[in-house]
Amino acid sequence: MFDIVTAPTRAKLADGRDLLFFALPGHDPAPVADRRPLPERDPDQSELRFDRSTGQWVIVAARRQDRTYKPPTDQCPLCPGPTGLTSEVPAPDYDVVVFENRFPSLAGAGRPAVVPDGDGFVSAPGHGRTEVICFSSDHTGSFAELRPAHARLVVEAWRHRTADLMGVPGVEQVFCFENRGEEIGVTLAHPHGQIYGYPYLTPRTAAMLGQAREHRIHYGDNLFAMLLAREIDDGSRIVARNELFTAFVPFAARWPVEVHIYPNRFVRNLIELDDDELDAFARLYLDVLGRFDRMYSGPLPYISALHQFADTEAQAEGYFHVELMSIRRGATKLKYLAASESAMDAFISDVTPESVAQRLAALA
Amino acid sequence: MFDIVTAPTRAKLADGRDLLFFALPGHDPAPVADRRPLPERDPDQSELRFDRSTGQWVIVAARRQDRTYKPPTDQCPLCPGPTGLTSEVPAPDYDVVVFENRFPSLAGAGRPAVVPDGDGFVSAPGHGRTEVICFSSDHTGSFAELRPAHARLVVEAWRHRTADLMGVPGVEQVFCFENRGEEIGVTLAHPHGQIYGYPYLTPRTAAMLGQAREHRIHYGDNLFAMLLAREIDDGSRIVARNELFTAFVPFAARWPVEVHIYPNRFVRNLIELDDDELDAFARLYLDVLGRFDRMYSGPLPYISALHQFADTEAQAEGYFHVELMSIRRGATKLKYLAASESAMDAFISDVTPESVAQRLAALA
Repeated sequence: MFDIVTAPTRAKLADGRDLLFFALPGHDPAPVADRRPLPERDPDQSELRFDRSTGQWVIVAARRQDRTYKPPTDQCPLCPGPTGLTSEVPAPDYDVVVFENRFPSLAGAGRPAVVPDGDGFVSAPGHGRTEVICFSSDHTGSFAELRPAHARLVVEAWRHRTADLMGVPGVEQVFCFENRGEEIGVTLAHPHGQIYGYPYLTPRTAAMLGQAREHRIHYGDNLFAMLLAREIDDGSRIVARNELFTAFVPFAARWPVEVHIYPNRFVRNLIELDDDELDAFARLYLDVLGRFDRMYSGPLPYISALHQFADTEAQAEGYFHVELMSIRRGATKLKYLAASESAMDAFISDVTPESVAQRLAALA
Repeated sequence: MFDIVTAPTRAKLADGRDLLFFALPGHDPAPVADRRPLPERDPDQSELRFDRSTGQWVIVAARRQDRTYKPPTDQCPLCPGPTGLTSEVPAPDYDVVVFENRFPSLAGAGRPAVVPDGDGFVSAPGHGRTEVICFSSDHTGSFAELRPAHARLVVEAWRHRTADLMGVPGVEQVFCFENRGEEIGVTLAHPHGQIYGYPYLTPRTAAMLGQAREHRIHYGDNLFAMLLAREIDDGSRIVARNELFTAFVPFAARWPVEVHIYPNRFVRNLIELDDDELDAFARLYLDVLGRFDRMYSGPLPYISALHQFADTEAQAEGYFHVELMSIRRGATKLKYLAASESAMDAFISDVTPESVAQRLAALA
């Protein structure tokens, strides 16, 4: 299905990083030369270390400690830079742009991370890919405020990058996400997200696929399709629906605000969605973000996580969906992860999923 | 070994909750009557919900939304209240005190949470126990500032509560912990910790025991004993040691500051430590906390998590240890959990474990 993905305009940054422009119909990206004197990239940016006590990889990216931290608005590296001297995006303007992170947690092509025989300390090169995606050239905007056609272009860019990164040697999982809000540590205000290509299955994804395999053995069907059907059947946690997608607060939500968005049909990733579904997804995603921003007097800080899966045996049970979560538990209160959550992964929620769903459903 | 645990002075709060005083030699706890008109306790404070997509229980404790939030110092509910009208601790003074949480996430005796056959939504009563432990009557103090004998008394109280709560029907895991610092959402400044009795094995503990079982099958020894031996052998991440305990930054640390403290001998919990080991533990624990507070100009916010295990077949490979972690990654910077950590459990560290260990080792 790769052929229906819009071809972006490609350019290179001064240090060789890829830069891709995705444009609305009638817009013609016009990148200029990146004339900044950037230092050469270090091929060994990071290291993976295997934690035997949990069976999980940890990325050690020590160079990121010096990354750009809350720059003044007039020095925003994500705003268009028509001179080619001030920005990561050397161009007079853009709609949606993607480029390789200058301070990457993962970089370079390699092989998936493996744990060799033996019981010693295990590390591996931090191969993979980390990209930045700017949703709009408007510094003060947000995803929720995008026009539907523009949101659809972001979805198209996510889809393109998913297809591309799934083909990078060594990438096991492609993760498109957005962190929004200074309250959760976002260091650049310009509306943007990130795209990671991990050289291993992340712990949560591995756990979910493990559960789904068990479920298939016991019940013969797909775990996530069953959960979606039960949520629709129950109805008490549905936030919004259209003919092709459903948004709900899950029965066992962990966060003060948590919404999952599923396509009504089983697919593994954005690449497998057809045009109507991509449209319906962009619409419902904007709908949910709009409800988020009407919950309190200011915009809701949130994390949006696209769970996508490859068409491989290990990931066969993976059902594409988005998990959105916020730590805001009141107009003036945030939920901090305390010892139960941080040290034991045991989540304690202060609100019932049904009450959050009712509130969000009413904020149409 | 229960017989060597110091017997505390027991009292009851106005709504029937347990209150236990642990005293230094020569001190005589003198509780007064709790004369506050407290509302009756609700036996159904919380609910467990099973998340089939991850195989994890989530606690839904909706009543906690109204719990005490950053009260003024003169209304601190953890300071001694000699009138019996102002505090959770009705007494003129105390050394260390433990009481049941007024806003519990878990309460009441029951059975361990189980997932029945079938693929529907599963919930269970939030049985278990949540206690508050006050380390000192000094509102402005901290654990790090306790005299060694006083810290040893806290360890004794943890040990007593561990033995007691392990005997509560339905409690599968006893978790003593401390969250310190407004930066991580602590709502009461008075130095205190908490003790949870969960009706299930927490996800991190279950993962660790699963890894240790696998390790035993493959290598024939205890996973944690092997990791401790390798850390000592390597030496580059050792922070401090005494003859009976070792503190180190683990090879695959997830947090900007992370230190694990292990007894040099395999035990499952505090109950199994002898007097010399309890002394040595209190000393090394204070030592590590002292180093934490010398890292920056102000006290380090941290979470301290005591990993204890029961003497059961399922928990047989569990090795008692403490995991301390902080989100402070610089004098003015905190590490926020972003999408990789929050949504995928994939941790990215900005510092090498060796550099943190060297820094802490030098702060003697």
